[in-house]
Amino acid sequence: MRAIWAELVGTFCLVFFAVGAAVYGIDGEAIGFVGVAFAFGLVLFALAYAIGPISGAHVNPAVTLGALLTGRVDAATAVGYWIAQFAGGIAAAALLKFMTTAGDVTDQTGALGSNDYGATVNLTGAIVIEALLTFLLVFTVLAVTSKKGATPAAGAAIGLVLVIIHLVGLPLTGTSVNPARSLGPALFAGGAPLEHVWVFIVAPLVGGILAAAVQPWLYGREPKETDRQTSEAL
Amino acid sequence: MRAIWAELVGTFCLVFFAVGAAVYGIDGEAIGFVGVAFAFGLVLFALAYAIGPISGAHVNPAVTLGALLTGRVDAATAVGYWIAQFAGGIAAAALLKFMTTAGDVTDQTGALGSNDYGATVNLTGAIVIEALLTFLLVFTVLAVTSKKGATPAAGAAIGLVLVIIHLVGLPLTGTSVNPARSLGPALFAGGAPLEHVWVFIVAPLVGGILAAAVQPWLYGREPKETDRQTSEAL
Amino acid sequence: MRAIWAELVGTFCLVFFAVGAAVYGIDGEAIGFVGVAFAFGLVLFALAYAIGPISGAHVNPAVTLGALLTGRVDAATAVGYWIAQFAGGIAAAALLKFMTTAGDVTDQTGALGSNDYGATVNLTGAIVIEALLTFLLVFTVLAVTSKKGATPAAGAAIGLVLVIIHLVGLPLTGTSVNPARSLGPALFAGGAPLEHVWVFIVAPLVGGILAAAVQPWLYGREPKETDRQTSEAL
Amino acid sequence: MRAIWAELVGTFCLVFFAVGAAVYGIDGEAIGFVGVAFAFGLVLFALAYAIGPISGAHVNPAVTLGALLTGRVDAATAVGYWIAQFAGGIAAAALLKFMTTAGDVTDQTGALGSNDYGATVNLTGAIVIEALLTFLLVFTVLAVTSKKGATPAAGAAIGLVLVIIHLVGLPLTGTSVNPARSLGPALFAGGAPLEHVWVFIVAPLVGGILAAAVQPWLYGREPKETDRQTSEAL
Repeated sequence: MRAIWAELVGTFCLVFFAVGAAVYGIDGEAIGFVGVAFAFGLVLFALAYAIGPISGAHVNPAVTLGALLTGRVDAATAVGYWIAQFAGGIAAAALLKFMTTAGDVTDQTGALGSNDYGATVNLTGAIVIEALLTFLLVFTVLAVTSKKGATPAAGAAIGLVLVIIHLVGLPLTGTSVNPARSLGPALFAGGAPLEHVWVFIVAPLVGGILAAAVQPWLYGREPKETDRQTSEAL
Repeated sequence: MRAIWAELVGTFCLVFFAVGAAVYGIDGEAIGFVGVAFAFGLVLFALAYAIGPISGAHVNPAVTLGALLTGRVDAATAVGYWIAQFAGGIAAAALLKFMTTAGDVTDQTGALGSNDYGATVNLTGAIVIEALLTFLLVFTVLAVTSKKGATPAAGAAIGLVLVIIHLVGLPLTGTSVNPARSLGPALFAGGAPLEHVWVFIVAPLVGGILAAAVQPWLYGREPKETDRQTSEAL
Repeated sequence: MRAIWAELVGTFCLVFFAVGAAVYGIDGEAIGFVGVAFAFGLVLFALAYAIGPISGAHVNPAVTLGALLTGRVDAATAVGYWIAQFAGGIAAAALLKFMTTAGDVTDQTGALGSNDYGATVNLTGAIVIEALLTFLLVFTVLAVTSKKGATPAAGAAIGLVLVIIHLVGLPLTGTSVNPARSLGPALFAGGAPLEHVWVFIVAPLVGGILAAAVQPWLYGREPKETDRQTSEAL
Repeated sequence: MRAIWAELVGTFCLVFFAVGAAVYGIDGEAIGFVGVAFAFGLVLFALAYAIGPISGAHVNPAVTLGALLTGRVDAATAVGYWIAQFAGGIAAAALLKFMTTAGDVTDQTGALGSNDYGATVNLTGAIVIEALLTFLLVFTVLAVTSKKGATPAAGAAIGLVLVIIHLVGLPLTGTSVNPARSLGPALFAGGAPLEHVWVFIVAPLVGGILAAAVQPWLYGREPKETDRQTSEAL
């Protein structure tokens, strides 16, 4: 149960702080795409070590799906994680909204940092890029937390791969790779981001499934242990 | 006693070098918000490993408060640390001032890198964001230096979480999350920064208290050891 | 055999994501040279830990040449790796092309992120800089994966040295240091990049040979073990 | 003897690649101050792990002075290191010059990346800032390679502290903190940089002496072992 609360707190932190960095500072005069990319990756870097020992620090339904399909968590845990992740993301978006009203902060993204496509990439491109970027994230997580790949640098690899993922995806879709990161802001932004939010739920899950197929194949299937959490290697 | 001197030297380094990066180079043609964010985080990264084994490298009264409330340091140590931290921050601000006069350096921030609100965020927003950003910092410190969370990457996680914290907060309040970082520059800047400095003392302490409540709850309370310092895991 | 597939998947990821970051975002308003440099280095950082345990994460024919010359891999493995690396790079370039057509994404580099010389450096300079930059990469890989140099930070050192290599080389040749990274995009770009691609195959291999001479000399020759893979230390 | 060659190769790499990043790309349209700061720090990060096991990766006369004064190296080793470091720095500057002539590359710094003062800081300020920045570097090196402070993250702390040091110093003096990094480029640049190069030799050495006084005092003096090299902890 503490693991589920950890996922809620962790996803709240990921969405509030990293999406917040975009909402408050993405304007070219401020932190820009490079700053936002590091914001996402470095908060995950910290969370990987800070809540990894409790829950594995998935903070992302696509990561949890990959962990479920490779036998790292059981189905009941996965469902609990998913609920916690979406709840954390929605709570974070609510607080981002609160900051723009009660806190008198300008939303520099115009849509509470929600993801969308159309401006620089079409629907096909958005699905392909989101699925592949999520593959890279979930593959990295599954690999560096596997028995053979376990390393004290696991949290660093996971956090920093999210930086490069955002460097690629920010100019295209704003980078989701995480349904819980997309749903919350879309609910408060409404309009096109909300209509299109299914893309940023489905494509990341497809990427997670792909990673769950490739990682065990490259590593050779390890003995299945239903209850081992990815946290062990963090 | 060496631990208290280490906190003084460490807080001096944090404030002189990281606030100095802003004072000498935040101008858009120079290092910008991204450079300042990395300056804060990377000096803490180095200090975490360089003085962590001596004092735990708190260099921040809010971190010391969190360590006190979770039983990592005793009250006498905490008071000693607090005095050392504020003294180090004031000494650093004095030297920053000296550089702008005797060293003929222009202060690009116009207020010796002090924190303030009003331009991009109101008082309510400043308090909320500073408390939450400090929560993330102190939660990370307490987690990665706990028995269950101990990791050789602890200093990396602590330093890099300060980067993301500054990426979020620089466009809003300039990011305090550290009363000792705010008081020194405010004393020399005077005016609004000095009038408002209470915000950057109170809100970070609130964030530290919040972290000291959440971390043990998520981790399950570990046996209390009054004298164990957070330095052990660094 | 799994190692060869790992090299194919890894090189695909390196070229698709890192060259993709340039193709989609190098424009000054977007991620710029600094963002592209981190894209290359951080994807290699992640791959070093994620596929290092399987194949050593060379993902670069010049690294494999250095590993062959220092007895870290045998000739049959090296040939298999080379084929996989070029295949992965070509597949990645094909998908980058697909994104610009079916995905409706603008290619901000105008040549699918291929390497070239002439604008800011001449042929002599391009050969010198590419050979030396590749020396730094392969020397670092051979050193931190040697018996005496083995460290849990190996993947970090390897990934981050690729960041500095790109900070130096991006304004000159766009930075190859990797024949497989250059061939794929050049095939789809055609024109001058394809005519000049031999430079970005030959010079990196020269750098790899140089590193394979210097590293064992500085370290003192370790007992040769034909089948030991560089992956061990990752 | 291999250690001395390692210092020569290492200092050559530090100066050629990191100063080269400035010479080829510091122009605001290219990598800027943030890129140059990471270039210096990340090449040292890699060298710390790649040649640390051989020589300790000082690659800086001020670090060697600190190591000598704290009994980490003996006098004969120190003299050998100093000769190698200056030789490596001069060789690197010669090749940087070669690239601007035979390689047809524009020197964006106008003075081969040499250090100077006068534009944004006066002589007093330059001496103070260089001494303090070097203190931070040498203190970090001595601390994280001491018996009590030893950590697998030592090379990371050393490399990344050089990033923050450059974020502070680049807008002021261009950041030396390393006499060998300053002398080579000054010899080829001539003029004011050569006249003023004594500042960038003396002030860093003062910083190194200061660090050699403070680190053992904070750590409590460890038993002296004349031949122990700082490399052990890397």
